Amino acid sequence: MSVMSMDETRDFLDREFPQMNDGGRSYHLEAVGPLTARMRLDHHERFLRPGGTISGPAMMALADYALYAAILANLGPVALAVTTSLNFNFLRKPGMEGLIAECSLMKLGRRLAVGDVRITTRGSDDLVCHATGTYSIPPR
Amino acid sequence: MSVMSMDETRDFLDREFPQMNDGGRSYHLEAVGPLTARMRLDHHERFLRPGGTISGPAMMALADYALYAAILANLGPVALAVTTSLNFNFLRKPGMEGLIAECSLMKLGRRLAVGDVRITTRGSDDLVCHATGTYSIPPR
Amino acid sequence: MSVMSMDETRDFLDREFPQMNDGGRSYHLEAVGPLTARMRLDHHERFLRPGGTISGPAMMALADYALYAAILANLGPVALAVTTSLNFNFLRKPGMEGLIAECSLMKLGRRLAVGDVRITTRGSDDLVCHATGTYSIPPR
Amino acid sequence: MSVMSMDETRDFLDREFPQMNDGGRSYHLEAVGPLTARMRLDHHERFLRPGGTISGPAMMALADYALYAAILANLGPVALAVTTSLNFNFLRKPGMEGLIAECSLMKLGRRLAVGDVRITTRGSDDLVCHATGTYSIPPR
Repeated sequence: MSVMSMDETRDFLDREFPQMNDGGRSYHLEAVGPLTARMRLDHHERFLRPGGTISGPAMMALADYALYAAILANLGPVALAVTTSLNFNFLRKPGMEGLIAECSLMKLGRRLAVGDVRITTRGSDDLVCHATGTYSIPPR
Repeated sequence: MSVMSMDETRDFLDREFPQMNDGGRSYHLEAVGPLTARMRLDHHERFLRPGGTISGPAMMALADYALYAAILANLGPVALAVTTSLNFNFLRKPGMEGLIAECSLMKLGRRLAVGDVRITTRGSDDLVCHATGTYSIPPR
Repeated sequence: MSVMSMDETRDFLDREFPQMNDGGRSYHLEAVGPLTARMRLDHHERFLRPGGTISGPAMMALADYALYAAILANLGPVALAVTTSLNFNFLRKPGMEGLIAECSLMKLGRRLAVGDVRITTRGSDDLVCHATGTYSIPPR
Repeated sequence: MSVMSMDETRDFLDREFPQMNDGGRSYHLEAVGPLTARMRLDHHERFLRPGGTISGPAMMALADYALYAAILANLGPVALAVTTSLNFNFLRKPGMEGLIAECSLMKLGRRLAVGDVRITTRGSDDLVCHATGTYSIPPR
């Protein structure tokens, strides 16, 4: 089990990052677990590139957000954890659908958390984007 | 000199990515040159984190966009160049100001273009974020 | 099944990179499969840091080599595929043992192959290092 | 000025990483300065790929080592700083010569140091490889 439940994690994210859902809720926390989190991004007009697929920057925001949710859920409310690095490989054009980001933490240390995020088009197993990222955790 | 002028590059970006400036123009191409481009992002409410500084995802979008502008200006209009990888190091919290992204291409090959992007707060020399990225260039 | 068998892949690697095994064979291809390869690195004195654990550069060579093996096995003999980018997260100090690198290709396109590599200490499930990498595949 | 002189830095590296120069000295610290270091790698048979150019893994070791030297010179002797991430873009095949790595630290904080490394063939300005890396600095 994670330290915070899915509802606690989502409420914390909503309070801390209200602007993520400006213009209507588009990022949906779907699950949290031991060292994991899953987040969905709706296929909404304001995230699209010409052609109708979700843009790279919207995927990058999704990956960062999913990673943050996994850390939060497993560490408890640490509002000040900050991203120190992110690395993305864009593998395929997404489909005309929302995206699912599955985050798995590879390390949750006292000072650094490192995770990877696999983004697929909803309803498909094909990887659209793979990300790895590091957060710095403040001293407690 | 670059292949396309700054005005030509900006017009092409505006036509191709109209959604970048949804809600008002915030990304401003400031210069293009041989293997370089500079882009500015305004300090606008919709890019801010709590605390009033520009968010990580807004910086990532800026870096990707600056890299694309540098490739476009130096290769001519290749609408289909696609990002294949991006890597970010977040170094300092930005100031309460807009951001400047200076992109420099390290390689502009037939198949791949690779560049780095240095993001500073407007009016300061301190690096806020450093990015490197690769675009795949379609066969012509 | 992969295109080349494990023996074919290993023989090709031996011919192409004889210097990998200078001073005695230390890198051992253990398996190849559909989009995968597994390689082992012995715990040999010439790869050690003070303290007796395998060094970062030896792990980086291992990851690069495992990725190459996975591409080779799944594409057939393409001696000229070249690494274009590699990204590493070092997660824990390895144990006093050899290392196992499990590579999985996330994309095997006509021009680019992208994979991730998970390195563990032999006999343990803890990730020591995670890598992602891209190879450029020459036109055929 | 850096905290340690070039001679002090080199002596420290030699004591700490004697195995870097197994088989004869090949890595040469050429300069240290405020947030910078320069290191040279000889064009020696044991680093070569077929074709006679220096291999990717040898370049990765060089970049990591140059980054470590820059941190050491600017922080004083901190033997326990450890690499947490490294990212490489391989841009061109090197020439039939030694390589020069110029490292510049973009951040030297209390907990993390981040730098970039530009590798060129000796006597040329063309970038062969670009690296960025992060070291974790132990509490003092």
